[in-house]
Amino acid sequence: MAILLIRQDGKTSQWLNAFNSQASQIECYDYNEPHPKETITMALVWKQPHGLFDQYKNLKCVASMGAGVDFIFEDPSFRQELLMTRVVDPLLITDMEEFVTAQVYAHMKGLYQYYSQQSSSLWQQNPYLRKKDITIGIMGMGVLGSATAKALAIQGFNVLGWSNSKKQIEGITTYEKLDLDLFLEKTNVLVCLLPLTPDTNGILKESLFSKLPSGSYLIHVARGPHLVGEDLIQSIDNGHMCGAAIDVFSTEPLDTKNPFWEHPNIQITPHCASISSPESVVTQIIVNYNRLMSNQPLLNQVDTSKGY
Amino acid sequence: MAILLIRQDGKTSQWLNAFNSQASQIECYDYNEPHPKETITMALVWKQPHGLFDQYKNLKCVASMGAGVDFIFEDPSFRQELLMTRVVDPLLITDMEEFVTAQVYAHMKGLYQYYSQQSSSLWQQNPYLRKKDITIGIMGMGVLGSATAKALAIQGFNVLGWSNSKKQIEGITTYEKLDLDLFLEKTNVLVCLLPLTPDTNGILKESLFSKLPSGSYLIHVARGPHLVGEDLIQSIDNGHMCGAAIDVFSTEPLDTKNPFWEHPNIQITPHCASISSPESVVTQIIVNYNRLMSNQPLLNQVDTSKGY
Repeated sequence: MAILLIRQDGKTSQWLNAFNSQASQIECYDYNEPHPKETITMALVWKQPHGLFDQYKNLKCVASMGAGVDFIFEDPSFRQELLMTRVVDPLLITDMEEFVTAQVYAHMKGLYQYYSQQSSSLWQQNPYLRKKDITIGIMGMGVLGSATAKALAIQGFNVLGWSNSKKQIEGITTYEKLDLDLFLEKTNVLVCLLPLTPDTNGILKESLFSKLPSGSYLIHVARGPHLVGEDLIQSIDNGHMCGAAIDVFSTEPLDTKNPFWEHPNIQITPHCASISSPESVVTQIIVNYNRLMSNQPLLNQVDTSKGY
Repeated sequence: MAILLIRQDGKTSQWLNAFNSQASQIECYDYNEPHPKETITMALVWKQPHGLFDQYKNLKCVASMGAGVDFIFEDPSFRQELLMTRVVDPLLITDMEEFVTAQVYAHMKGLYQYYSQQSSSLWQQNPYLRKKDITIGIMGMGVLGSATAKALAIQGFNVLGWSNSKKQIEGITTYEKLDLDLFLEKTNVLVCLLPLTPDTNGILKESLFSKLPSGSYLIHVARGPHLVGEDLIQSIDNGHMCGAAIDVFSTEPLDTKNPFWEHPNIQITPHCASISSPESVVTQIIVNYNRLMSNQPLLNQVDTSKGY
């Protein structure tokens, strides 16, 4: 009975340390180190190399280290009988709320433009937006999307929500799947917080941008493959969109040759909107590991038929 | 019976147009154009050249075009028997609330640092602050300061207020004049919204910064002369303060040789936090002009004995 940690970004030791300090009795292994494969019952993963799960015949559950699980579904060695969990972390939620709020205000007040003007010693007042001038449309009303929508509505922003199945949230006008066009035509700050599924892959493309009012802004904090980068650049360069703040990319770190780096109206951040903290997440994983061992229902289990 | 407009930044025609469209029966003159001096009963001013008021023997009231009136007090030709008014404009208030909120979030999430990293194609996640990590201390709890404090408190920020006379505002811990040190030691995002008076001139100096906790940030949106620029730079360069967002300067536009332009931890904006809109302000001025003509008490009159 043991947990296997699989991630490739050099941060595995932080996660092992978190287990050691919180539950030293639980056996944990880095997949890169020798380990007894037959003992592994839970795999804790973040963007794991594909094809490994087949090697673990006693594996019962694959747990994501974050809110996203798309990279587990994409792995052909993920078998249908395996359980899947994701992280629902209050810290991840407040971080996302605060990051999106920060980007909304920076856009409204033109802070990036002023910072750019500073580098050329240019003193020039620019037009700006007031809260009442913008309507924030949130795509994806799951845990992060709903919380972010509520946090913005409490501040007095006009907020719309769009999701597969229509949600009822006080103070927020919500739209269901087929009403995407209605949602888009009323939105001028579009926030993507969708799960990545075959349905949503590439959804942020020219035909979607064209339905937003002229001068709209995109805040993309979901998953890289939602966005067709060249379509965004084209929509900005032809003057339809006014710019974008992008935190997530199909390849991370973002290739230094990617045109986003040098685009004056695209602000990129290094997938920092909401970062799983090992200390906080490991506490949840231990609870679920104990539930798994005693055959109790898991917390934050993913409906593998829906994909999120 | 006429109004004289005095400002030197080339924007007078916008103000004359606003009068023409809202009250074409009121005579208005640009001080730079020929005008019948004996008819002038009200001067509407913004950073007027000093010494002019003596030429208008029927002048009864000097009205600021904005929230600040320091430049009227500094004019030796402002006689004690003259009335003085300032602008209290709901738009100025919400603009200030939104601008300060924008700078608070940009600081918390390190948006300027990421924008700077983008220019050198650097992918690097940095530490950031959460709402719960910061305490915003607002110096000056007048109309703008109180409104900004309330707007931040509603969003869940921990907010303190400091002012000459202690204010009672729900959700905000307030300090009076003598408790400045107590206020400073609990603040790590300091927002200056003080009026400029002989007492507050130069108040943002090394001995004040040194009482803030290490790593504090300054958002200065009041008046240029509140701040001793070299003291701020020294406090940042020696590592005590982490940076500042400054919107107001003793000389505007800011001299291109000023070291603020090139300082990596100082973000400057061109006095854009809250800009009087001629259309909105002229409506108030017309009301007060009519009250002046009919000997009724003026709205938003300044207590010239207090200086604000």
